[in-house]
Amino acid sequence: MSKKNSDTEKKEPEKMVDSKLSLILRYSAEISACDNLETIVSLIADETKELLEADRCSVYLLDNGDDQLYSWVSHGLKSEIIRFPAGKGLAGFSAKTGETVNIKDAYSDERFNPEFDRRTGYRTRTVLCMPLKTLTGDIIGVFQVLNKKSGVFTPQDEDILSMLSNHAAGAVEKTMLYEEIRESFTSFINTLAETIDARDPMTAGHSSRVCSYALLMADKMNYNPTKREILKYAALLHDLGKIGVREAVLTKPGRLDPAEREHIQRHVLVTKKILERTHFQPKFREVPLVASSHHENYDGSGYPNGYSGEDIPEISRIMAVADVFDAVTYKRHYREPMPFKDVIRIFKDGSGSKFDSRCVKAFFKIEVYKILKIMTSGTEKEITENSLDIFKDITLEDFLSHLDKGSGPVVKEFSKFYPATDLKNVS
Amino acid sequence: MSKKNSDTEKKEPEKMVDSKLSLILRYSAEISACDNLETIVSLIADETKELLEADRCSVYLLDNGDDQLYSWVSHGLKSEIIRFPAGKGLAGFSAKTGETVNIKDAYSDERFNPEFDRRTGYRTRTVLCMPLKTLTGDIIGVFQVLNKKSGVFTPQDEDILSMLSNHAAGAVEKTMLYEEIRESFTSFINTLAETIDARDPMTAGHSSRVCSYALLMADKMNYNPTKREILKYAALLHDLGKIGVREAVLTKPGRLDPAEREHIQRHVLVTKKILERTHFQPKFREVPLVASSHHENYDGSGYPNGYSGEDIPEISRIMAVADVFDAVTYKRHYREPMPFKDVIRIFKDGSGSKFDSRCVKAFFKIEVYKILKIMTSGTEKEITENSLDIFKDITLEDFLSHLDKGSGPVVKEFSKFYPATDLKNVS
Repeated sequence: MSKKNSDTEKKEPEKMVDSKLSLILRYSAEISACDNLETIVSLIADETKELLEADRCSVYLLDNGDDQLYSWVSHGLKSEIIRFPAGKGLAGFSAKTGETVNIKDAYSDERFNPEFDRRTGYRTRTVLCMPLKTLTGDIIGVFQVLNKKSGVFTPQDEDILSMLSNHAAGAVEKTMLYEEIRESFTSFINTLAETIDARDPMTAGHSSRVCSYALLMADKMNYNPTKREILKYAALLHDLGKIGVREAVLTKPGRLDPAEREHIQRHVLVTKKILERTHFQPKFREVPLVASSHHENYDGSGYPNGYSGEDIPEISRIMAVADVFDAVTYKRHYREPMPFKDVIRIFKDGSGSKFDSRCVKAFFKIEVYKILKIMTSGTEKEITENSLDIFKDITLEDFLSHLDKGSGPVVKEFSKFYPATDLKNVS
Repeated sequence: MSKKNSDTEKKEPEKMVDSKLSLILRYSAEISACDNLETIVSLIADETKELLEADRCSVYLLDNGDDQLYSWVSHGLKSEIIRFPAGKGLAGFSAKTGETVNIKDAYSDERFNPEFDRRTGYRTRTVLCMPLKTLTGDIIGVFQVLNKKSGVFTPQDEDILSMLSNHAAGAVEKTMLYEEIRESFTSFINTLAETIDARDPMTAGHSSRVCSYALLMADKMNYNPTKREILKYAALLHDLGKIGVREAVLTKPGRLDPAEREHIQRHVLVTKKILERTHFQPKFREVPLVASSHHENYDGSGYPNGYSGEDIPEISRIMAVADVFDAVTYKRHYREPMPFKDVIRIFKDGSGSKFDSRCVKAFFKIEVYKILKIMTSGTEKEITENSLDIFKDITLEDFLSHLDKGSGPVVKEFSKFYPATDLKNVS
């Protein structure tokens, strides 16, 4: 924006768009494109300060829960959040009464609360406060503009602030609404995944843990936010198709016969079908394919399509590692999880054949304490500060050498959380 | 807005906020609060026209599919949509090249396409065209502003239009994104409901039909958009909890024993649990309760809570009628649906006891052809124009007297779609 600004300033005076006009237009464009609530409010506070030629502008939000105002955006404050009872000070008065307060000399007004000035050394002179109302007229906060640069706040300033306040209310309400919808979708997917996993006691919590492991791998592979989001949806939904699998097969304890195996393998196709019929925004269009390819193997021996290598979406290759890791390590009430050395063996042996070696590598780069946190989520075991001290930033790769060296403190600590660490057999 | 305008105009000149400033501020506020794409573009077109003191402003959208521009908003056009090849005319040139076009005399420019003027009798003089670009620089459309009221479009006008175009791009992209998320959520719920219904061939398509019947009842009860939306979600999701019911019980052909009955009744509790853990925006907070109360009976004989009368959410009482109607009328491949007279009897007898009589009344107010359309959805049977002529606006209530009178043309036509109309038994 600063660049555009100087472009405009270079123009001949008679050709210049009125600077305030241009200021509002630029802010409106920026606000319209922004979908982060804090940034929107912050932009409107900046715009207010500039348009009203004031020194500072703060926006306080009303918390109806405890009847307090807290600073949402505040020029002159860094990350500190101020909280005070609604009703206190000029901003509080405005929030409580819904009235506009325009004060020429703060210190001669008994409603003014000089506490903040005393604490920060600021000197408040002129104050303009106006409630921030929703479109239906509810007060959700208050604008407080301080120290007009020359003179006092005028009725025009009040008019402008009133319009800016409407702008803020509209933008805030719309953004909140959309955040709610986004949150609805995500929480619904989460709950659904849990419900599907819970149909089979052997898989309770599985999708969420696979998602967590896969996200840690994605971090090691420097995924950007969009790819992380695709991974998140795909991982949470990868077993969605199990809705269409008979429980008799799903929960069968022994080996599956070929017909049963084929039936259970259908779940990835059901996952794909459901997701393909879901409308995803363009950046998420690959979710159906990614979610339904987690049983493809790198060497082409997987299902449903027998794709191999780079023909399998990379995110699915990540999920394949996470999926198997959770399957073999999850502690069930009727059997111990697989000995940890055997777990490692699966990935060492499978790297480059069943699994993409890059994904296995990323997996081994994960810190041990992070893996244990996921493993023990939903259980009573808790990674204490003491455990963290012992594990420090030891990765899974590092941990292997600890395992090889015998049962040192790291291995012993690990075995507290993962009893199948097989201390006796450690060489 | 016109009211505000005149308020402002009445003020003393020295107290007036610069009128253009005020214009932009008001438009920004209105646009920020709006979540309808067409209205947003339309507001920006109005703002452009006023700010640039032009006679008209149109916004064309580029359809990359067929490389055409079509009018999105167009002053001077009513509902007609203009379409022309991208590249044609001044707007087309601007869309193709990404350049701003500022013309003092349209008819002396060979790129100008006079077709529209010829057709409508309009006389284009000055033209300002500017591409509408996304934040990433892709051209998605073009602004075309016509006939500056005095003189020609100035470089200032170009600057202003450029900022308005940025504003439009931000607002359009953000709104589209949110519409996509909303659409994702809704389509996911739809597909999920279908998948759950499809686990049991007896209930394929059930949730969607229940939802359609219930919406028709809501219309007869003058529901507002929010209540309709709550109903829609609740109806589509009412059997979500069947994910947690064993198929052996779900698909058992004969009578259920008490333990099985209790197990199947659990599905409403599972529905409730899943939905309660989903984050809904405030206006949808009652969806979990509503969705899980569709088996409550008006007289208190239902489950899971045995609530009665007004203690059952009204939307659940509507759903109860729609749910039973679909259960008894759905044609299955191995048995005919219930004779229609018996269907009617269920609701006549149950009105005021099992069912809320107001809901039964609303149900009987529905037009017969609308019910048949839902009943036959997904089948090969189609309600033809001829059928519509016969059914006209006959409601279910009206249809009863037809049934009582014997097998007239209406009853005969009905029996084509619902073979169990029992023509022989009609008195």
